[in-house]
Amino acid sequence: MTMTLESAEAPLFSWRLVRDSSVPLAQQLADKLAGQIEQRALRAGARLPSIRDMAGLAAVSRFTVVEAYELLVARGLIQSRRGAGFYVQASAAPVEWPLAQPAPVERTTLDVSWLLRSMFQEAPPGGALSGSSGMLPPAWTDPEMLASAMRRVARLPTGYLLNYGLPEGYLPLRQQVARLLQRDGVELNPAGNLMTTGGVTHGLSLVVRYLAQPGDTVLVEDPSWFVGFANLAAQGIRPVGVPRGMRGLDLDRLEALAQLHRPRFFLCNSVVHNPTGHGMTARVAHEILRLAERYDFMVIEDDTYGDLAGGTPIRLAALDGFKRVILVGGFSKLMAANLRVGYLAAAPEHVAALCDLKMLNGLSSPEVGERLVYAVLAGGQYRRHVLRLREKTDTARRICHERLRALGLDPGLLPDAGLFLWTDCGVDAERLAMAAADQGLLLAPGSLFSPSQQPSTHIRFSILLMQDERAWDRLARALAAVRGSD
Amino acid sequence: MTMTLESAEAPLFSWRLVRDSSVPLAQQLADKLAGQIEQRALRAGARLPSIRDMAGLAAVSRFTVVEAYELLVARGLIQSRRGAGFYVQASAAPVEWPLAQPAPVERTTLDVSWLLRSMFQEAPPGGALSGSSGMLPPAWTDPEMLASAMRRVARLPTGYLLNYGLPEGYLPLRQQVARLLQRDGVELNPAGNLMTTGGVTHGLSLVVRYLAQPGDTVLVEDPSWFVGFANLAAQGIRPVGVPRGMRGLDLDRLEALAQLHRPRFFLCNSVVHNPTGHGMTARVAHEILRLAERYDFMVIEDDTYGDLAGGTPIRLAALDGFKRVILVGGFSKLMAANLRVGYLAAAPEHVAALCDLKMLNGLSSPEVGERLVYAVLAGGQYRRHVLRLREKTDTARRICHERLRALGLDPGLLPDAGLFLWTDCGVDAERLAMAAADQGLLLAPGSLFSPSQQPSTHIRFSILLMQDERAWDRLARALAAVRGSD
Repeated sequence: MTMTLESAEAPLFSWRLVRDSSVPLAQQLADKLAGQIEQRALRAGARLPSIRDMAGLAAVSRFTVVEAYELLVARGLIQSRRGAGFYVQASAAPVEWPLAQPAPVERTTLDVSWLLRSMFQEAPPGGALSGSSGMLPPAWTDPEMLASAMRRVARLPTGYLLNYGLPEGYLPLRQQVARLLQRDGVELNPAGNLMTTGGVTHGLSLVVRYLAQPGDTVLVEDPSWFVGFANLAAQGIRPVGVPRGMRGLDLDRLEALAQLHRPRFFLCNSVVHNPTGHGMTARVAHEILRLAERYDFMVIEDDTYGDLAGGTPIRLAALDGFKRVILVGGFSKLMAANLRVGYLAAAPEHVAALCDLKMLNGLSSPEVGERLVYAVLAGGQYRRHVLRLREKTDTARRICHERLRALGLDPGLLPDAGLFLWTDCGVDAERLAMAAADQGLLLAPGSLFSPSQQPSTHIRFSILLMQDERAWDRLARALAAVRGSD
Repeated sequence: MTMTLESAEAPLFSWRLVRDSSVPLAQQLADKLAGQIEQRALRAGARLPSIRDMAGLAAVSRFTVVEAYELLVARGLIQSRRGAGFYVQASAAPVEWPLAQPAPVERTTLDVSWLLRSMFQEAPPGGALSGSSGMLPPAWTDPEMLASAMRRVARLPTGYLLNYGLPEGYLPLRQQVARLLQRDGVELNPAGNLMTTGGVTHGLSLVVRYLAQPGDTVLVEDPSWFVGFANLAAQGIRPVGVPRGMRGLDLDRLEALAQLHRPRFFLCNSVVHNPTGHGMTARVAHEILRLAERYDFMVIEDDTYGDLAGGTPIRLAALDGFKRVILVGGFSKLMAANLRVGYLAAAPEHVAALCDLKMLNGLSSPEVGERLVYAVLAGGQYRRHVLRLREKTDTARRICHERLRALGLDPGLLPDAGLFLWTDCGVDAERLAMAAADQGLLLAPGSLFSPSQQPSTHIRFSILLMQDERAWDRLARALAAVRGSD
């Protein structure tokens, strides 16, 4: 149809959509709008008609409009603002390495809530990267890996959607996860030692609630992932830090604190420590387990970035045989954060109790995501994807390491794996992070990674973020500002 | 290819799959196996070759075998047993109204964990119904509604899967939910008053943790949904019951208990109370809110079955304007339990705090399910589905009510809506439930619905389960056994 409407906007939307074309209506609509954006007939910042109005203007269903708008969002041409509609992007040229936007929430100090919220802001075109986030850039991910899994899952009969899934999670996925872990020497049975979770954070939250009570003191690494502390704090549990540096964990301190506090658990990364990127030696791993036995504590092994490690990584769960270790892993970082699929591996009695807790807190986990992850794993694409990623991260890490040194910063020994460089900047890291935020660069200062929030001169740099030249410019400006004011 | 292998099982699997056929390989394989099951070449109880072995035997990928086996599970011809493989069903004839299997877990008493676990057992052919569960039978659900949503979502670009979704959840879904609630007079803004959850149980678990501390006393209805108490107990919170019967809530008791305990919240169903099926009058709703203000407590409105109510249901959130009410709803019961999609509606400051809590406990929720639910809502199928369901449940409820009376039981006043009949059986309900379990009929005894687990003569019958003649036979036998032993 041709539309010639009275409204001021109407001339912009006078075109034909062809109903019996092989091109879906949504695609046609998206193409028309994309053309107008490229010709600047729709200018940067302009608000698109609401979904309802556009459906009226184009005489298509609202669903078609939603699909069309989503296609345009995916192409980076428009942006949805929460509750306010869709707007033409300021820069309609696709940006390969988008920078984090300064957080719109008001702030005078950096804190965990602020940083967490900043991770979840609406994405600039092509997918957001905030300096605090370990999310892979779109160019390093494999959309076809997910698209083909999606097609497979969409072909399945939908009967399984009507009933709750097993609380332990989709069995074929557990079998695949077991195979991944078995390859690294972790002996386990997918039917007794494994359950699925909604990602690592969900898994940790369940394990913490299972093992500890409000008022308890537990041990964590210092530095370590700040969502872990926030989770503990929200449950009234006090984390005490055991120092971990380039040279490994301070075992004497671990023993002294275990003796003093008699903690319920010690939470740590064995492989690819966040934020330092270093792994544990076999001796340290063995010693942790020996102390766990002597002082009767459990060990929660957070394996978030474990798959990034090459060679034969040392996992506590492999040494321990699930006597004192509960391993928590997932697929958010290397496969797809939005699927929210992770897993727990532990002794069968712990898995049974954790399943009960999972049920009380949300019944089963959704099987669509678990079937998608299963399809990716079973098709062999994940293994290939991870091998490619390791190569890419190795290069990016080396380059980033050199450039940080060139700026007069100290990123320490080059880690073997992972997405982060834990870097001594020689100035107060919070001040530097604030100065960087003023430049439009979001950085995670070391104090966030300390359970006692001690001031720190360290910043956790993401090797992903720091591939963008503008990030280096902004970092240099922020450094100059902080050094200049000293 | 033709397979002639040495193994004892090999002759069974000697047939050709046609690679360039328009019939997918998985379908061909499923059809071959279905034929052998129907001809009894594969007998009831026989174990099928493992996925790996079958892939070898049929020279297809393991994924093809998984799809084929899933097709057979969906047809009710085979069954998967956890960790043990796939078996030919005992009764390969499709069963329209499958009965719950007696729980294989050992038990000497009925308890919440046992009943919860029983809800999650592997399904008998065609989808499980346990007597305690409010899940719709397959014949009442609309697989095409979900299948078409799945096709739409599968066509979307997968870019959104790579990054976390918004912690508040997928905005278009929130807009649809807002419209549903607005239709019933609940005024709210999808961008400030709403967030998504992983279903009602997840929503309740967040709200309870947000409002109460371990050691607190809170008020609940007696009787009410037992997962609610279990959730409270798991968090060290003490639920005290306010009596609710056919005639509504005991408001004097509510006031006395509010005065005595100064509870942080009162948890209740306004529309379609579980287990009695009755709604609240406007006067009761108003009075609850008046008491909430006087004694300074919040009201958690569990709206699990709210969409089943016709007419203009009275919701506390509609009266209150989100001053003291947090509404928790979802799509598990009437759309698809396995998607795990629900929502919370509350004042913006509560939504912001609950979002923070949601993030700490698992970051964002998976968007695939939220997009599926959105597609169903936006396509208008949910509305039609709910209208059909109301008609079906009205008839089933009336028939079930009559038949319970004919057995000498007292289901009270016929409720206007819902899936349950709260029925006085005149004998101790736990004894009756045990006797029924011996007959292969799983019933939920009244004591489970009491926060103080008081013995009860009530059973919550599902009008769905009781459509099966065998359920009535088993109930009659159980009643005879209990009455005979008195």
